[in-house]
Parts: sequence; C-alpha cells; structure tokens
Amino acid sequence: MIVEMRTGAGKDEVDVVLAKVKSLGLEVQMNYGTNKTIIAVLGSNTGQLPTDILAVLPGVENVTRIMKPYKLASRGFKQEDSLVNIDGVVIGDKRVVIMAGPCAVESRQQLTEATAAVKEAGATVLRGGAFKPRTSPFSFQGMEKSGLELLAEAKKKFNLPVITEVVDPHDVPLVAGYADILQVGSRNMQNFSLLMAVGRSQHPVLLKRGFSATVTEWLTAADYILAEGNNRVILCERGIRTFENSVRFSVDISSIPVVKKSSHLPVVLDPSHAAGHYSLVPAIARAAIAAGADGLLLEVHPNPKEALVDGLQSLTPAAFTRLMAELKPIAEVIGRYI
Amino acid sequence: MIVEMRTGAGKDEVDVVLAKVKSLGLEVQMNYGTNKTIIAVLGSNTGQLPTDILAVLPGVENVTRIMKPYKLASRGFKQEDSLVNIDGVVIGDKRVVIMAGPCAVESRQQLTEATAAVKEAGATVLRGGAFKPRTSPFSFQGMEKSGLELLAEAKKKFNLPVITEVVDPHDVPLVAGYADILQVGSRNMQNFSLLMAVGRSQHPVLLKRGFSATVTEWLTAADYILAEGNNRVILCERGIRTFENSVRFSVDISSIPVVKKSSHLPVVLDPSHAAGHYSLVPAIARAAIAAGADGLLLEVHPNPKEALVDGLQSLTPAAFTRLMAELKPIAEVIGRYI
Amino acid sequence: MIVEMRTGAGKDEVDVVLAKVKSLGLEVQMNYGTNKTIIAVLGSNTGQLPTDILAVLPGVENVTRIMKPYKLASRGFKQEDSLVNIDGVVIGDKRVVIMAGPCAVESRQQLTEATAAVKEAGATVLRGGAFKPRTSPFSFQGMEKSGLELLAEAKKKFNLPVITEVVDPHDVPLVAGYADILQVGSRNMQNFSLLMAVGRSQHPVLLKRGFSATVTEWLTAADYILAEGNNRVILCERGIRTFENSVRFSVDISSIPVVKKSSHLPVVLDPSHAAGHYSLVPAIARAAIAAGADGLLLEVHPNPKEALVDGLQSLTPAAFTRLMAELKPIAEVIGRYI
Amino acid sequence: MIVEMRTGAGKDEVDVVLAKVKSLGLEVQMNYGTNKTIIAVLGSNTGQLPTDILAVLPGVENVTRIMKPYKLASRGFKQEDSLVNIDGVVIGDKRVVIMAGPCAVESRQQLTEATAAVKEAGATVLRGGAFKPRTSPFSFQGMEKSGLELLAEAKKKFNLPVITEVVDPHDVPLVAGYADILQVGSRNMQNFSLLMAVGRSQHPVLLKRGFSATVTEWLTAADYILAEGNNRVILCERGIRTFENSVRFSVDISSIPVVKKSSHLPVVLDPSHAAGHYSLVPAIARAAIAAGADGLLLEVHPNPKEALVDGLQSLTPAAFTRLMAELKPIAEVIGRYI
Repeated sequence: MIVEMRTGAGKDEVDVVLAKVKSLGLEVQMNYGTNKTIIAVLGSNTGQLPTDILAVLPGVENVTRIMKPYKLASRGFKQEDSLVNIDGVVIGDKRVVIMAGPCAVESRQQLTEATAAVKEAGATVLRGGAFKPRTSPFSFQGMEKSGLELLAEAKKKFNLPVITEVVDPHDVPLVAGYADILQVGSRNMQNFSLLMAVGRSQHPVLLKRGFSATVTEWLTAADYILAEGNNRVILCERGIRTFENSVRFSVDISSIPVVKKSSHLPVVLDPSHAAGHYSLVPAIARAAIAAGADGLLLEVHPNPKEALVDGLQSLTPAAFTRLMAELKPIAEVIGRYI
Repeated sequence: MIVEMRTGAGKDEVDVVLAKVKSLGLEVQMNYGTNKTIIAVLGSNTGQLPTDILAVLPGVENVTRIMKPYKLASRGFKQEDSLVNIDGVVIGDKRVVIMAGPCAVESRQQLTEATAAVKEAGATVLRGGAFKPRTSPFSFQGMEKSGLELLAEAKKKFNLPVITEVVDPHDVPLVAGYADILQVGSRNMQNFSLLMAVGRSQHPVLLKRGFSATVTEWLTAADYILAEGNNRVILCERGIRTFENSVRFSVDISSIPVVKKSSHLPVVLDPSHAAGHYSLVPAIARAAIAAGADGLLLEVHPNPKEALVDGLQSLTPAAFTRLMAELKPIAEVIGRYI
Repeated sequence: MIVEMRTGAGKDEVDVVLAKVKSLGLEVQMNYGTNKTIIAVLGSNTGQLPTDILAVLPGVENVTRIMKPYKLASRGFKQEDSLVNIDGVVIGDKRVVIMAGPCAVESRQQLTEATAAVKEAGATVLRGGAFKPRTSPFSFQGMEKSGLELLAEAKKKFNLPVITEVVDPHDVPLVAGYADILQVGSRNMQNFSLLMAVGRSQHPVLLKRGFSATVTEWLTAADYILAEGNNRVILCERGIRTFENSVRFSVDISSIPVVKKSSHLPVVLDPSHAAGHYSLVPAIARAAIAAGADGLLLEVHPNPKEALVDGLQSLTPAAFTRLMAELKPIAEVIGRYI
Repeated sequence: MIVEMRTGAGKDEVDVVLAKVKSLGLEVQMNYGTNKTIIAVLGSNTGQLPTDILAVLPGVENVTRIMKPYKLASRGFKQEDSLVNIDGVVIGDKRVVIMAGPCAVESRQQLTEATAAVKEAGATVLRGGAFKPRTSPFSFQGMEKSGLELLAEAKKKFNLPVITEVVDPHDVPLVAGYADILQVGSRNMQNFSLLMAVGRSQHPVLLKRGFSATVTEWLTAADYILAEGNNRVILCERGIRTFENSVRFSVDISSIPVVKKSSHLPVVLDPSHAAGHYSLVPAIARAAIAAGADGLLLEVHPNPKEALVDGLQSLTPAAFTRLMAELKPIAEVIGRYI
C-alpha cells in the first residue's frame, strides 16, 4: 500500500502512520519528496488489509492499494491452472465443456426432451433450474424439490452430470444431494452466508459474476469458497450492467483473458442471460470460445414458445445443434476441442 | 404491453399472438399501420407479466412494457404516504428521522460512547452492525450475537429504537428478538429468501437499494416484503455503481423525488457508504434533506481512527453535532423539522 | 409512439393530445382501459419526433418511443448489406479487412518499418494518427500536416489505402487530400459539426462509437453523415465505459450482432484502445472475428517501448504476425477469409 | 508513480526501468520486498507523464499513478477559490448565481417573455441556445446567428449578462462578439480544438462535464482552457450516464464537494438536462444549493408546451418563481445568499 501524505504534513503526522503500520507487523520504506512524503507499506498480506485503517489518520491524503484483495484465487498463490473434475468431465482442460439445458425444470417431459437433445448435440453437463430467483414475487419460482428429483432422474437416464442453482444457505445439503455442481447466481455473488455454505459442502461450485462486480470483486468472492478448503470452483461470466439497452446485460468478453492472467481457476461464459434474445446467442458463444473460455453455460428448451421462464433467450434443439457445429472448429483453431 | 410485429409479418403470426394474449385473459386493441401491425395488450396485471411470453412468438419484433413490474409499492396501488411507526418514532412524517451510530458494534464502551453522542445531538434511532457482510473472507465479520446483546443494552439504557442488519434468512427470528428495524443490505436487495423471511417476520424493514439496481427493481424487491403482508417498509438510497472513481458509490440524488412520485413508501439516504470519506458526508447529507428524504442513516464513531470497519467514512461525535446544526434549518425551509 | 395518460385524466386532456398529434400530420389509435387511456401515435416518421412534444402536455404520464430515432442507417431503410469500396479493398464483404499500423505517426523510419511489417503479415489498410486528440494539454499532440505527408508517402510506397483521424471540421479538406478513409474518434461521435463536414466531403468515413453511446445513438450519429449523401460509412466498436477497471474500456462484443441486425452498414472492431494492454489484444481480436466483425483496426508499432503514444496497447510486428495466423482459420470457420 | 515489478523480475529488468526514469529527469526510491520490487518515481510532473511509458517495459506488472493528471485546475496549484467576474456578477463568491432562460432561442417574443420572467424572479444571468447540438440530424438545430442577435437585444434591454453555447471552434469569435460566457457542452468536453479556441478567446467559459467523464477528466479538460492563459473557467455538473432509466442522466451530487476539494474553480449545476422532467427539477436544484454549488443553470420557458426543444424539462415562469423562494433560505442556511 502506498500512503500519500498531504502537502505540508508534519513529522508528528508521519510518525502516527509509522506507528500504526508497525503495530500491524508491516514494514515501511520512506520516500521524502520536495513537498510530499510518500510511505510504501510492505508485507505479504497488505492486499487483505483495509486501506481505511491508514487513510483515516491525520495528514494522510490518500492510500492506494498495490496488491489485490484476493489471495487464494490468484495466479500468484497457485501458478498452474486448476482443473475441476466432475465424474470424469474435466473443466479447465483441453476439452471445452458445454453445459446446456432449460432455464427452469418445468416437467419430466420437458426435461427429458431437452436432455436428449443437448446430449445428442454434444453437451457434457446438463443444466436446469429448480430454485429460481425471480425479480418479481408474482413470477413462477421453480419446482424446488420435485425439480431436483427430475434432474436426478435425467442425470441417471442420460449419464450426464447435473448443475443447478442454490439460493439459500440452508438448502445446500439438499441440493448437493442431487446435483454435481452447485451454481451460485449473479445476484448472490456477495451473499457471503451462501458462499461459506457451498464452500463447506466440498461440492464443485460454479460462481457467476455479479452483474455489477469487478473482476477483482469476483475473485475475492471466490476466496470465500476457497477459504473453506473447497478448491473446485468454476467461474462464470454472464454479462455486466452498463448503459447499453439493446441487450439485457453486456458480455464483458475481456474478462476471459483478464481472469486467465489473474487466476488459476477455470472460467466459462453464459451467453443466454446476457443477450436476453436467442438471435444474439450464437455470435456471443463463438466469441467466448475464440477468446479462450473453458466452456459455456447455455439455455436450450424443446419449445421456447411455451417456456415458463426466459423462453426468449433459449435456443431450440435445432439451433443448438447448428451452434455446436460452428463451435467445434473454432475450439480446434485455438488448440482445444469440444 | 405493446407488441410490435415485424414489417411484413403475416396474419397467421398476428393470430398466434392474439391467441396467446386471450389465453392469458387479457384484452387487445389492434393498430394496423401502413406496413407495421402494433398490438396493445390491456389488463391490470400486465406489469407482472414477463414480456418474453410474447416476444418469443414468430413475427414479433419487440415488446415494450408500459406498466411497471411492481404493484404493492406503487402510488397507483396506494395514494397516501405510508408512515412507519417504530415505538413512537414515525418515519415518513413531518419529522425527519436521523438514524446514527457506528458501522459495526465493537465493544460495550464503543457503543455506549457512540450512542450517548448521537442521542445528545438529536438522533432518534440507533444504528449498529452485529452481522457484517464483508467483501473479503479475511476481514472482521462482526460480533454477531454478542453484538445484538450490546445493542439491546444500549437501546434500553438510552431509550432509542435500534436498527441492525440481517444477512441470513435463518437469522431473522434471532435478530428480530433484539432489533426494532431489520436492515437488508445493498448486496442482498435481490436475495429473495431473505426478503421473504423479513416480510414474514412482520417487523419493520429498511431495504437498501442494490448498488446496481434501478429504482424500478428496488420497488419490485420491496413488493417481495409487502407481499408477505408486512407494510412497514422503509427504502434507503445508498449510492449506485458508476464509472466515477472519486467516491465509493455515486449518490443518486434524483432517486429521492423519483421514489416520492412512484411509491407511497418512506425513503431515507445513507451518505456514509456512498461517499466513503467523512469529508464528503455533510454536503451529501444536506443535499438529501433538501431533496426531500424522510431521514438519514449515518455512521458516527467515537474514535474513527480505531474503528475496525469503515472508519474513514464515519463522523466523529463533534462533526455529527455540527452537521445536525446545519440540517435542522434546511428541514424547516422545506416545511419539516428534525 | 405510445402516449400513456395519467389515471383519471379527463377527456379535455386527451383532446389536447389528439389535437397536437393531428397538427403533426400523424394518425392515432385509441385504447380506453378501465382506468387508463393509452394513445398509439402512428406514422412513418415518429422515430424522429421528440417524445417531449407530447410528454409535456397536461395529463400525460409518459411517452414511449416504439420506432428507433435513426433512419438512414437502419435495415428497415436498406435491406441489403452496404459494402464500402476503397480502391478495391471492400469492407463488409466476405474478406475480413485488417487495418493496422502505429497509433501515432512519429517519424519516416517508424512508419516505414510499421507499414512493411503490417503489409507483410496481411493487413490491407494502413492506419496511423497525425492529429491526436489527447486528454491532457501537456501530452504529444501528433505531427499534424507532416504526419499526413509521411502517410501519403507510405501509401504510395506500399500501395495500401490509408486511414487517419480528423478532429476539426475545418481540417477535413486537408486530411481528405491525403487519406483514403477519414476516422472520427470516439470523443467526437457527437461532434455534429465534424459529422456534417465529413459527410459533405463524400470521402469514406470510419465512425468510432462514443465510449458512452448506446448502439442507437451511434447509428443516429451515422445518420448525420448519411444525410449529407455520403453512403460510405464504416462503424467501429472500440469499447464502452463501465465500472470494470481491469481494462481501459469494456469491449461490447454483443454490439457486433446487434449492429448486423439493426443496420446495413459494415462494422469493425478496435481491440487495442479498449484493452489498453497488448496482452489482451489477441483474445479480443479473435472474439471479434468469431462474432462476425467485418474487420479490425489494430495498433502495431515496430518498437512499442519507444512509442510516444499508447505503446502499452501496441503489438510488435512479431505478435501481429502470430495473431494473423490465428485469425485466418477463425474467419474461414464462419465462411469468410482474411 | 509506483512501478510494481513482476514476481521474479530480474535485476536487468529493474535496471531498464531505472534508466528510463533517469532519462526523464525523475528520481526513484527503491523498495525491495521479499519477492517483489516496487519502484517509486518522484518528481513534480509525474501526473502529466503517461503511465504507459513505464508499463510497457519488460518485467513491469503495473504502474499506478499517485499524482493527478491535471495541474492548473488543481487546489495544489492555486489554494484560494477563483472568482469569475462577469460585468459585476461574480461566480464563486458568497452570492449563489442563478442563470436561467430557455433551452433554445426561438423568437423575439419567446425570449423577451422568458427574460422578463427570470429577471423578475431573481436570475442574474440569462441563458439561451442559438447553436443547438442535436443527436438527430432531423431535429431543429437552433436559430444560429439570428439567435445571437436576439440574445444581444435581450441582454441590453434587461441588463443581464448572457451565456450561450458554442459548438465549432471557428464560431468562437462570432459567439464571443455577442455573449458574455461561452458554454462548452457535455458532448464537447473533450473536443480539444474547441477547448483551445475558447481558451484563446480570453472570454469567460462554462465547461459542462462530459456525461461519461470522471471528475479527474473534467478537471484535465479545464486545463486545456487554463493552459491558454484564460483563468475565467466555470465548471458545470449536468448528470452522468448510468444504468438508471427513470431520469435522463443521474446527477452526481457528490461531484460538488469533490470539485471543491480538488480544484479552485467555481462549480454550478444544471438540474434540467439531468432530470429530463420538470417535476424533478426543484428537488435537484435545492440539493445542489445545499451541497454547496456556486450557482445553477436552469431552463425556463414561457410556454413549455410549445417549446421546440426540451420543453419537458423546462420550468414555467411560475414554477421558477416558486423554486427561487425555496432556494433563498437554503442558501442562507449555509452562509450564502441569492
């Protein structure tokens, strides 16, 4: 951390800062400029220290953090890529993993049709929501436990691992009893009770980026899960909130190379929720693979016109099959495969 | 809702839309333009209907919502202002309510000093955090239950109602046993499990705006609480995330008159978390009162330099007393008092 | 446009709206709901009409625009893709066009080295800045006229069309005397004097998206150029301002399919200015081609360490050559070539 | 500037950085951590130095700027408040200055009525647009020169200084011949040709904040004007672009105290363009004065229903008179007057 003193700050003010730094067990290096004193605070944990502790002291102009606030999720902490193995499906490896299925589980028939279609086209993980966080209390909230049971049936019948969302920390054991990957949704990225609960479960977790979270905040949220000793964390970019109004959220495509540089965790992308419209999904999905994403999380519905939730952003099985045909050669171009 | 058909959409496509609308029990009004058909969908609940249901149909160009998605929180639903009465302290009435205290409860001594100071200066509600949602797992997480006990002591000793945050739906009964107002934090504005739990508690609730939520989404989140039959909801503006980096969050001052126009619920403003720096708090607090806010939620710490959390944005008792002296005549100018 | 009257608005208020609409030569269709009157205003030019004209009338709750405000740039106005032909290099056709070169022209040697390198690697247009809009008055402002002369030399020597920026409407004739494509920068996207001047020039124009402009505003700005009878307009996505701070600007990758749907104009992408760091450029460039961009505008410098402007985001000739090898097969996968 | 080397960066890489810093005439202070070397670069002009120059060097992880990029506009450069005196109307002093009038000059009658009304209610500067930058080429573009003539007439008749916008650098002498204050609009905040032209004019300039500019960028733009030796610069906050859609732009109320802390220049606020709706203007105007703004720029139209531009955000003379009565006591509360 770099502490910049105010122009004209006195020796007594500088001494208060130095005393505080020493009480924290950190070292300092002094830089006396012509009319500014700048204090560099050194130590391996300064990223986790709140800047306020020093900024509040008299004579301090501002405090700049140099180290990142996340630690366990960082490349500095672990150099080699983390691979997340789910019953033989490995996320973060050469093979790009396609997780597809309906936004919400609606019935046995709907789920069976969707699963058959996505498996046929090459998906290796089945997605489907049983607990649905909805912005309005008057909307369909998901099939809950009976949805989980249908997912377990489909998993067995089609031999595909299953990913589904969990929204309440106290439901984690229940959901973990049925699903192979626990999904933490965008609106819950900083629901710390939930992060700790999925961390303690030791189950693989897919952590969606908060739609207004910086990459740094996202990786710091991942630290909550990793700090429980659960290393099987998959990140998922799903678009951020901006002023642009032609899409529901703006996919932050640069987050893919930024995460790859900053973290050892695998990162996938959800083009469906960001676009909000099926016609935009294929272009965004192709871009994600070209940018180096480790996988996709995609909505496919046997009959989007009848979907209870998010039909507009779902691909039909036929459109999904066409998209898979486009994605395969792009993966190969960059040295991977689907 | 207004359904705009694509240029050249056929009668069969229009008919599919009409059939869907009828199946939902809604009425239509047709507008045949030279080369565009536009269908107005009428009915009192169209605000709660997802636009996707129609947008996904063949031949539809787009669907525009005219009605707002929230209902119970709207001025249309209830014309007169809602007043929230907490043991005689009424929020939303002529008196502007100042809720002040430390960000986090740290010790009996710290809380006692802070409470004595804010009461002396004219605050009528005591704020203090026992459960602290922190962005890093390596930061101080609050005193939890023992913090609640200290708040209950202070409440009794100083005869001030208490507001504190609850972060897990399963802690609601515990927190409601000690606090007079349950605070839902910005990061939990769309934690729907929590909203339903505080709704069911029938306890007064202060709902902070999500830092990336539109006013419409905020009022829709309030509907979750109101839908449980709990009408004592107080809204709290606390700044939104923008590109500006001189403050932690940008106070959306216009949200005060916008909420007053759109909703019957009282609205207060938290200048401390937005500003992130004590030197900016007084100007924002004055602006809030001048704009018509029903109150303020403010951080005051007896010794900000020693605060464990957010010391930089806390006012000292002396600064708080000076601020109160500035706020009182502003309230009077606009026909209110503190 | 859809005019929603306030609940309880009287017949006299509705009549004032109807009279205003008629005075504008437009038609209406009335929708009388239970307690709301909604008026649909029909006519082919309602997209260009300010909504204020009606929103200001007594009894009006709000006015929603259904038609887009742009016209000449829209797919509705012209169905087939526009191709921009610059001395045989066609933008918007099967061939993806790579425009590369240094951010700023610095010297004959630097430009010659850069041009030789980009031509060798397959670029078909040379980019280079002579007039540099810099955020600080204390930064290098470009070589101006002598920079243009060096560009003209390079163009002749290497037989590559040249693109360069123009920043003042009165410089348009000068710049057009040297360059094949006039670039309008992001900060000037709504400099209407400049848009009209480049329109009148009848020279090909590359219009960068304002970093805070919606796609709709960008296409409306293109209308300014098209309205002067100049149809050779190329759009260029270059990242938008968001809260994310790991990159200079966030590339809005979805804007590529959105523009393709909404407009007939070709669209290219500049990965260099958005990323702000050379290490992120290749991933974004690959994503752009995969998403369907008609070309790229890229910064290449023979020696980025010595660059006077934006060295950090420039590729070396070697890195550019490697990137071109990655881009070619991606273009082929989606039915194009480089 | 703080240069953070990569973990494991070699001595040769550090030496290259040191050599570059020395070649720029700057000093360094070295901080050797356990596995990180951090180099502090010292010197009074490091704020104006692009960080790229060092960030591009091998082994550098990143470069953080400590000094601000603006200089002449900063409090560090000039401690005491700058007052801008326009024929006896002083901006930045105890008296809060209200500049009011129509968005666009439309006719002699409209301007005369508006001027009479605003003068009567206590405005001390007349505003009115002759050149109108409009987002669509199909909208009314202003009366141009004849509008300037009408403004000059009104100025003489009512003895009020006049402020009007200039949009093209080559029109500066013309506009300066009629107006007392040259207004640079939000979309032109980084039109550097225009900034230099108004700077050279030595005429008072009101510089609106770009709707996506940070406060730092705004003050850096002011440096362009100040660098021409023109010290009569007034800043104007007018709302920034955010995701919130209930208003046209979100007023950044915190920018008022932030500017007061960072700069010696006076700052006023335009509530009309931000709100976009007359019903929100009074609350925002009151908040601005309470927050410490040196004045307001307000739209008043004798008959908003007939306004050619922005009628919806204009106050009627009666509403303006009521607002002035609210503002006067607020100004007094904070030790000023109107």
